[in-house]
Amino acid sequence: MKTQQFVVIGLGRFGSSLAMELMDLGYEVLGVDINEEVVNDMSEHLTHAVVADATDEEVLKSLGIRNFDCGIVAIGDDIQMSILAAILLKELGVQTVVAKAISMLHGKALSKLGVDRVIFPERDMGIRVAHQLVTPNLLDYIELSKEYSIVEMTVPQCLNGKTLSEVNTRARYGCSIVALHRPEGIIVAPTAMDQLHAGDIMVIIGSNSNIDRFESEAVNVKS
Amino acid sequence: MKTQQFVVIGLGRFGSSLAMELMDLGYEVLGVDINEEVVNDMSEHLTHAVVADATDEEVLKSLGIRNFDCGIVAIGDDIQMSILAAILLKELGVQTVVAKAISMLHGKALSKLGVDRVIFPERDMGIRVAHQLVTPNLLDYIELSKEYSIVEMTVPQCLNGKTLSEVNTRARYGCSIVALHRPEGIIVAPTAMDQLHAGDIMVIIGSNSNIDRFESEAVNVKS
Amino acid sequence: MKTQQFVVIGLGRFGSSLAMELMDLGYEVLGVDINEEVVNDMSEHLTHAVVADATDEEVLKSLGIRNFDCGIVAIGDDIQMSILAAILLKELGVQTVVAKAISMLHGKALSKLGVDRVIFPERDMGIRVAHQLVTPNLLDYIELSKEYSIVEMTVPQCLNGKTLSEVNTRARYGCSIVALHRPEGIIVAPTAMDQLHAGDIMVIIGSNSNIDRFESEAVNVKS
Amino acid sequence: MKTQQFVVIGLGRFGSSLAMELMDLGYEVLGVDINEEVVNDMSEHLTHAVVADATDEEVLKSLGIRNFDCGIVAIGDDIQMSILAAILLKELGVQTVVAKAISMLHGKALSKLGVDRVIFPERDMGIRVAHQLVTPNLLDYIELSKEYSIVEMTVPQCLNGKTLSEVNTRARYGCSIVALHRPEGIIVAPTAMDQLHAGDIMVIIGSNSNIDRFESEAVNVKS
Amino acid sequence: MKTQQFVVIGLGRFGSSLAMELMDLGYEVLGVDINEEVVNDMSEHLTHAVVADATDEEVLKSLGIRNFDCGIVAIGDDIQMSILAAILLKELGVQTVVAKAISMLHGKALSKLGVDRVIFPERDMGIRVAHQLVTPNLLDYIELSKEYSIVEMTVPQCLNGKTLSEVNTRARYGCSIVALHRPEGIIVAPTAMDQLHAGDIMVIIGSNSNIDRFESEAVNVKS
Amino acid sequence: MKTQQFVVIGLGRFGSSLAMELMDLGYEVLGVDINEEVVNDMSEHLTHAVVADATDEEVLKSLGIRNFDCGIVAIGDDIQMSILAAILLKELGVQTVVAKAISMLHGKALSKLGVDRVIFPERDMGIRVAHQLVTPNLLDYIELSKEYSIVEMTVPQCLNGKTLSEVNTRARYGCSIVALHRPEGIIVAPTAMDQLHAGDIMVIIGSNSNIDRFESEAVNVKS
Amino acid sequence: MKTQQFVVIGLGRFGSSLAMELMDLGYEVLGVDINEEVVNDMSEHLTHAVVADATDEEVLKSLGIRNFDCGIVAIGDDIQMSILAAILLKELGVQTVVAKAISMLHGKALSKLGVDRVIFPERDMGIRVAHQLVTPNLLDYIELSKEYSIVEMTVPQCLNGKTLSEVNTRARYGCSIVALHRPEGIIVAPTAMDQLHAGDIMVIIGSNSNIDRFESEAVNVKS
Amino acid sequence: MKTQQFVVIGLGRFGSSLAMELMDLGYEVLGVDINEEVVNDMSEHLTHAVVADATDEEVLKSLGIRNFDCGIVAIGDDIQMSILAAILLKELGVQTVVAKAISMLHGKALSKLGVDRVIFPERDMGIRVAHQLVTPNLLDYIELSKEYSIVEMTVPQCLNGKTLSEVNTRARYGCSIVALHRPEGIIVAPTAMDQLHAGDIMVIIGSNSNIDRFESEAVNVKS
Repeated sequence: MKTQQFVVIGLGRFGSSLAMELMDLGYEVLGVDINEEVVNDMSEHLTHAVVADATDEEVLKSLGIRNFDCGIVAIGDDIQMSILAAILLKELGVQTVVAKAISMLHGKALSKLGVDRVIFPERDMGIRVAHQLVTPNLLDYIELSKEYSIVEMTVPQCLNGKTLSEVNTRARYGCSIVALHRPEGIIVAPTAMDQLHAGDIMVIIGSNSNIDRFESEAVNVKS
Repeated sequence: MKTQQFVVIGLGRFGSSLAMELMDLGYEVLGVDINEEVVNDMSEHLTHAVVADATDEEVLKSLGIRNFDCGIVAIGDDIQMSILAAILLKELGVQTVVAKAISMLHGKALSKLGVDRVIFPERDMGIRVAHQLVTPNLLDYIELSKEYSIVEMTVPQCLNGKTLSEVNTRARYGCSIVALHRPEGIIVAPTAMDQLHAGDIMVIIGSNSNIDRFESEAVNVKS
Repeated sequence: MKTQQFVVIGLGRFGSSLAMELMDLGYEVLGVDINEEVVNDMSEHLTHAVVADATDEEVLKSLGIRNFDCGIVAIGDDIQMSILAAILLKELGVQTVVAKAISMLHGKALSKLGVDRVIFPERDMGIRVAHQLVTPNLLDYIELSKEYSIVEMTVPQCLNGKTLSEVNTRARYGCSIVALHRPEGIIVAPTAMDQLHAGDIMVIIGSNSNIDRFESEAVNVKS
Repeated sequence: MKTQQFVVIGLGRFGSSLAMELMDLGYEVLGVDINEEVVNDMSEHLTHAVVADATDEEVLKSLGIRNFDCGIVAIGDDIQMSILAAILLKELGVQTVVAKAISMLHGKALSKLGVDRVIFPERDMGIRVAHQLVTPNLLDYIELSKEYSIVEMTVPQCLNGKTLSEVNTRARYGCSIVALHRPEGIIVAPTAMDQLHAGDIMVIIGSNSNIDRFESEAVNVKS
Repeated sequence: MKTQQFVVIGLGRFGSSLAMELMDLGYEVLGVDINEEVVNDMSEHLTHAVVADATDEEVLKSLGIRNFDCGIVAIGDDIQMSILAAILLKELGVQTVVAKAISMLHGKALSKLGVDRVIFPERDMGIRVAHQLVTPNLLDYIELSKEYSIVEMTVPQCLNGKTLSEVNTRARYGCSIVALHRPEGIIVAPTAMDQLHAGDIMVIIGSNSNIDRFESEAVNVKS
Repeated sequence: MKTQQFVVIGLGRFGSSLAMELMDLGYEVLGVDINEEVVNDMSEHLTHAVVADATDEEVLKSLGIRNFDCGIVAIGDDIQMSILAAILLKELGVQTVVAKAISMLHGKALSKLGVDRVIFPERDMGIRVAHQLVTPNLLDYIELSKEYSIVEMTVPQCLNGKTLSEVNTRARYGCSIVALHRPEGIIVAPTAMDQLHAGDIMVIIGSNSNIDRFESEAVNVKS
Repeated sequence: MKTQQFVVIGLGRFGSSLAMELMDLGYEVLGVDINEEVVNDMSEHLTHAVVADATDEEVLKSLGIRNFDCGIVAIGDDIQMSILAAILLKELGVQTVVAKAISMLHGKALSKLGVDRVIFPERDMGIRVAHQLVTPNLLDYIELSKEYSIVEMTVPQCLNGKTLSEVNTRARYGCSIVALHRPEGIIVAPTAMDQLHAGDIMVIIGSNSNIDRFESEAVNVKS
Repeated sequence: MKTQQFVVIGLGRFGSSLAMELMDLGYEVLGVDINEEVVNDMSEHLTHAVVADATDEEVLKSLGIRNFDCGIVAIGDDIQMSILAAILLKELGVQTVVAKAISMLHGKALSKLGVDRVIFPERDMGIRVAHQLVTPNLLDYIELSKEYSIVEMTVPQCLNGKTLSEVNTRARYGCSIVALHRPEGIIVAPTAMDQLHAGDIMVIIGSNSNIDRFESEAVNVKS
């Protein structure tokens, strides 16, 4: 099976991070930016990196953009360039076009122009960081729905040595510990007899309010 | 118990998103930006929003910054302002100071100056988006360690109606479905007899390679 | 019957000329521009003229834009503003949205976003003027198809006093004089006996090559 | 006969469109612009294209400008350059000098300096577009005088199959159909028995008010 | 007799000096400049001084420019404004329009537009200063023709006490002393017996070469 | 005798005019300007022209500035460069340093720094032009003192054919005609019998008020 | 006796520090700067602080500058303003004028214009810091001549408890300890029996080479 | 012993003066600046001078910065560059890092980041100059403590020929003359019989108030 090929247009902080992660994940990535210095910095980290104006159809054609599976328009703050580049990628036949938007209106324009997926990195990251700030023990989380989440928390000192049945999150807080992650390995669906060790990471599933209650009453306790 | 109070310095896309999410989560937020227009736009969404130069000690004092539990320096691209504001927040006695960095060197400076947590929103978001791009069925994920993750995937048509024992992810792919999320509610630790319905969201835990194998062999199948 | 209402966004040379002509034709016109000076200059010539940012949805709503029959985005050189304003007009429910484009790619974007009609004033005017330059007697013309045109020409001195049958354009040049315009009035479908007077305007229909031949052999003759 | 030679000074949107149309019409065109990028883009479309300052007499002389039949000063927004270039073209003996003006005062200056024809493309195009907007069926038109026009309209569905005598535009609306343009060809001075087919283009001559009345009562009818 | 009225447009170094000298000579002067600071500085030295854009016809009309006998366009370096202001003064009926030019081409444009007199202050002053530099005793001069001048020179020590007949400029150098200016008064057409006093100013008329010879042989003598 | 050598620093309109006139008068001139384009334009008109920063001592030394007889600092509007260049010329031993000033304070600084002669070209030219404007027949003039002048006027039609004794300027107006300049040659100290011819130039000496009276009563007469 | 009065022109880092130190020393100080913000910051630290253009004679007169004993021109980087302000202070009769120079040529100009003392703060401070860097124990120093200095050094641990006769700097290193500064007080001209205590400051006089030798052999010893 | 090596980052007025003084004192100095012109000017005065961005870790490594004994960050006004460069020098292992600060907050940041010594050249120089201005006979001084100083003063005419016992500074003013510096040499700890000569330099130690009293009563006396 042929490796998937990505073209990332705009190699700012978001675009370069995305491009390098794609490389780490084993894909081929062409990076495009109009700024020569930026391209030089990235050229050793990507399959290819070229200085080009992504709103110039001839230029994109000569780069063989049509052969890429997925194009990501990660252009920073220039809505005009973002929109024109997105149109061109679609026109040239790139199958999946993803684009970063910096405002709701920009996002709406991208969607109307046929962009397959519009992302708002700063807005989304602001939301993630807000959650982490208000729940100090929270390491990371997935929002399953408006009400339910899976969260990752460090086991606090006060729960050290307790068995799951002693903590009894399901009965007392309405949420479940679905996995424990320890230096020795991961325990999926731990049993009631499994012990919590301070510093382990526990993966908890439940409604947001129940998880919050568990966190404030059992985890974040100041002795 | 007194509500926690946050001050967010810099109300760009990241800062404003973070501040508004904190408000949604029920906290009090003071927003500070040097740009009047930005402050006007945010004033109706935050507890308070003021136009101020966050590198002027007198100004911060007069805002009573010392009384805030947590300060977030979300200043966009101006490393100098970011550093000076972070120092001032620490000097004034804000307990927890979080700051956004735009480069590794900037992050190093912030850490050395005593900032409690340094975040790289664009870089982190680039990484998240990369993962989502290469696994089309992936909705969201938590990286438990370098090797293990929890991922959230939509149940594909080809698995519709199958029981967990039929799919048997643990034996065949070495990963476990720890929860199912359906319109009717969430099923934590589903049993072998529970059926998958196309469109449900399944929460899977396992090593990255095992999850990938499951995704490419069982989920992302073109009939 | 209610008078049709137009909103013209962008009051540069093209937009202001269009807006004033619409006023002359008896319609109501709201002019919008971000530049105060421009708005002041136009305010006495239009029904209303306001200083506003046409990419701000709240602003457009407060102007009651949804009630206008037709919106013309005549923004000069700022593709970004042009695109965002066009989207908003469509979103707000303006029935017909017309927009000026400054490049083919810009035009393509506007069409994809649902703009009803895209115009290229400078390009079109360049074409018109080119035709007028190469046919010095040509006053104006309509291109019926790639091959056929209607043209308006001044009757030259050398044709003064001749009857249409003497000139006999149909037989000799394959084109017809369908009207004559004189100080006394207009003669539609003139007869073979009608005389040409130097200075009259004759309206000719025919293929471009036939009209050209007529013009160079019979009209543009240096005695 | 020697082909006419044109020099176009200023290759912006208007100038380049004009220059390319002249090429299409079979003439030789020298394009001049001070901007190298612009000249490069045009060089393959014109007989010659050079980077030059058109206000430098020596430069114009070395280009042999005196040998051109017609010079068009299509300089965008720089009144000073426009005026100085126009003077130089006249001084160097170019027979016909045409110049684009961006304001009435600019136009007045050009006329006083001996420019043979002053054009206002944006203003004129604004007027044309205004007419087309208010008469949706109007394709194009020539203004014969302040009162009379020739217009080109699509035959609407409601007139399909009717003969000219049935429609009887002259008697009922005071205007005449002087030509019909169909896929099969053009019919000049159609007879009363000729039928209208929906989608044909009819060329109508008459006073503006009569044409308007015909358009609103007979053409633009919503069944 | 009504005092002559002048309007000076552009109050830079040249314009302000000219305007103030006209005031000193007893005339009424309206000063116009687009720069408020400049106008404030001049307002106490002129009859009136106003901040205005001299290329705006309405503004000039409201200032009653048509009633001025003479308009001087002394605008510094902006050829466009200079040309447009000059046209407007002529259009509005100012009888005599004088304008400063900064290049030959600019001067040519002004002349063609009907400006009555075009002056090149920097160029002319460069020429005057050149003459004074090469003839150290020269105080001032008038060029009667390409060959003849009247010059003003200080009587040197070496001629002190000599009578005109002793010096005998006419016979020896072919030039004549037509006046002597002393502390006691002016002597027009001095006689052969009049004595020269060191420090007096003598007015000499003659051909340039003769005056030069006199200056280098009799005046500029180092004992 | 060695030809005098001049260095002119600053080749703007004043400096270049001065430098070229010095060349015309037969002297050697080195032109110096920091702007390459300006130097290129002048290089063919001067003995030498170099691009150099005249505030850099090493540069001036390498040009051998110490060997020049006279240095003229004709720098346009940059007081700092003017002052530093003037000091350097004095330091390097240029015998006579002349500098252009743009304000009284600038002139004072130059004088204090030892500049031999400070000139104010725009101010002086403003004054000259003012005099010429108010005396339409005045061609040129020398101000002998605050009260006395020599002026050059065209003989008007109304004095045509009159002898000097008929005009009798001395008795009637208190001023004297000291020379007449005709196509045939110059007449110094014309006699009472010499006739005035319309179009001749007469050179008149007298007090300003007497010359004015003569001009308004005898010369500038509208018949 | 009347307190001395100072006016400090330019309130940048150097000027404001100087002005505040003069206040601390008990003098009256008027601070002048063209920047309003700067003046506001300083107004509470100085007798008076005003926003003013120090190159405007009228402004300086209205401030009564002539009554000040000493004027310091501490203008940052603008040589032109520095020179013009210095001239004005001298013109207005300020007895002592001190000015900061940023280059040798600037300093030369200031001296020629009659400035009483020219200082080069950055250059001088660069020199002082260089000395302190190369002699780590050096606290401060006075250069008596090119060869001799007085220096201030901390007594190192290795000399703790030794008497001056034991250390015997005069005999062994050719330099003398002329004072000792201790928490208890200062000992001028200490005797041979006085003991050194680690941490005391000793004031040493001698030739630079002798002091260096003492410093490297006796003071800066790593045990 | 190996010569100490210094790297100076930022070659403005302060940095270049410091670097050149270090060279004069016999050390090796590498100068770094981002401005090519500045580096060219300094390259002949320093061991090495390179154009480099001191916030780029790779660049600093390639310059072998880790081998330098002392790094001085003398960057002018750019706080961001100053802070990032200082961190890098510390990171790379430069033993002693000294940095110039332009404000208290900047200084605080530098200290927190581990900079060994923070200097405020303009502020310190302002203080030094203030002292010299208020004590006209003061040549230089060392501040031993808040109260005690050593000062260097010229012996005035009124003390000429007096012996130290006659002046008796210790008894009458509470301060001591610890050294005399004469053309013939330096006298350390002069005896009561040593005579003062006008023009000698006397080094005096004492409390500030006593020294001031001595200066105003005995030194700065107007006869």
